[in-house]
Amino acid sequence: MNKTENKTHTLLLEETKKDRKKAQSIFKSLRDKICNTIEEIENYDTDKKIQFSIDSWNRKGGGGGESRNLRGRVIEKAGVHLSTVFGELPYGALDEEKSTNTSEFWASGISVIVHPKNPFVPSVHMNLRMIVTNDFWFGGGADLTPMLHSKRNSNDTDTILFHESMRKACQEYPFAKYKEFKANCDKYFFIKHRKENRGTGGIFFDRFKSEQTSSDFLFLNDVGNNFIKTYKQIILSNMSKEWNDNHRMEQLHYRGRYVEFNLMYDKGTLFGLKTGGNIDSILSSLPPIVSW
Amino acid sequence: MNKTENKTHTLLLEETKKDRKKAQSIFKSLRDKICNTIEEIENYDTDKKIQFSIDSWNRKGGGGGESRNLRGRVIEKAGVHLSTVFGELPYGALDEEKSTNTSEFWASGISVIVHPKNPFVPSVHMNLRMIVTNDFWFGGGADLTPMLHSKRNSNDTDTILFHESMRKACQEYPFAKYKEFKANCDKYFFIKHRKENRGTGGIFFDRFKSEQTSSDFLFLNDVGNNFIKTYKQIILSNMSKEWNDNHRMEQLHYRGRYVEFNLMYDKGTLFGLKTGGNIDSILSSLPPIVSW
Repeated sequence: MNKTENKTHTLLLEETKKDRKKAQSIFKSLRDKICNTIEEIENYDTDKKIQFSIDSWNRKGGGGGESRNLRGRVIEKAGVHLSTVFGELPYGALDEEKSTNTSEFWASGISVIVHPKNPFVPSVHMNLRMIVTNDFWFGGGADLTPMLHSKRNSNDTDTILFHESMRKACQEYPFAKYKEFKANCDKYFFIKHRKENRGTGGIFFDRFKSEQTSSDFLFLNDVGNNFIKTYKQIILSNMSKEWNDNHRMEQLHYRGRYVEFNLMYDKGTLFGLKTGGNIDSILSSLPPIVSW
Repeated sequence: MNKTENKTHTLLLEETKKDRKKAQSIFKSLRDKICNTIEEIENYDTDKKIQFSIDSWNRKGGGGGESRNLRGRVIEKAGVHLSTVFGELPYGALDEEKSTNTSEFWASGISVIVHPKNPFVPSVHMNLRMIVTNDFWFGGGADLTPMLHSKRNSNDTDTILFHESMRKACQEYPFAKYKEFKANCDKYFFIKHRKENRGTGGIFFDRFKSEQTSSDFLFLNDVGNNFIKTYKQIILSNMSKEWNDNHRMEQLHYRGRYVEFNLMYDKGTLFGLKTGGNIDSILSSLPPIVSW
């Protein structure tokens, strides 16, 4: 790296200082809201307090994170993770690294994965992140994965609700191209060897930045808030539905597809595992019980 | 491809005709023996006949195979597959393809995966194959995967028995280098991101051929026969051991490791899935119920 590049990089870290703090604070506040919502649902009619466990971890090379995990009655397994990592940019860390003239980075994000017990309640995934190199940008998305065949299509009530919620999160921001983000999501969460989607989609965006960072933050915040508001609604309307062994087997079967996608195609998972990331945190996305 | 290469290739297919038939006949006879042994164990004290289901499949491009699958009481899931495929060599099909001056191939093999119900009975995998391009060779191996922590080490009785059985299969053949084959196995079945082995090993060999093909066949036959003889012994000595929910959870946990290896590192699985192989047959190696 030559001096100019180094300086550019340093300047950008300095210039983005306030925004980086803002991003972290948004992610933390969303984390709290999401964990509270799930704990409330978990404990709706019981004195037994089911809570997220909290594990902190440090990253060799810079930074670390906090993993919150829950195993409950309604939610069979949930992981809500915050991380802020920085230092030398690991090779292959970013798809777009070819266009990144720096070997250092800073990244912060929230990721959420929920696998409910009742097969009628779809699994869900959401993540938001801010990345700084000699440029800075945002990425993230949210997508729904119904685990019953009858619900794995675009006419599914929950799917319609979820898409509508994501559309609304985008609509106030002219820079948030809902149709494009929705298409990205379908393209990304595709299980190539089965020629089928992991779930019924949502939105997905990367390398994203508008003219005004303050608007970007409002947008990220709306995605996170709409996500948990709508998913809560989806849980509540399905969690009491009666299910039998056949529903459960179908759920475990489609969870297998979820595992196939995450271990074979998910860039974050593969990169994390192959470069010595926090295994427990990365693989907390895998469903609790799966069958093939 | 130029004419000379084409001729070399054609000649080799012709020259190996008898041997190719012999390999197929050995694999078929081992398949029958293995399936019979498992069915015998499954039905040892019951009138209810639990049997392998039989599915045939054809490969676009040439050849096909027969998958035999069983879901039983003792054996939760077993897959015993024969396949003979040929035609144009798919790109990346062979690690060693750089040294292969042909774009055509013929390959035949047997593969066996058994996931027992009782957590005290280890899972097992075995496969044998013959491959012909403008050269021909054999490959294969067998390895044991105990699913309880206390058994996942080299002092485990079953592991000692299994290693001894594989050593004996090698010992009559000076060309079958047991120590090398054992080391290959440990190296291959290694879960890189966890820095741990999938199981407790066995043997693994590839691109293998001695001076006399007739001896190679005797060796392959001994590997297959010792495999099923010893594995039967391992099943019988463990299948009646009492187990509880904790043993089961431990088993499901280590089955997760098995899935991580197969979906992330197993060359055969990845190649098969990514190039449109028979998905059901390839993924029949995955355990029936898994947890993370």
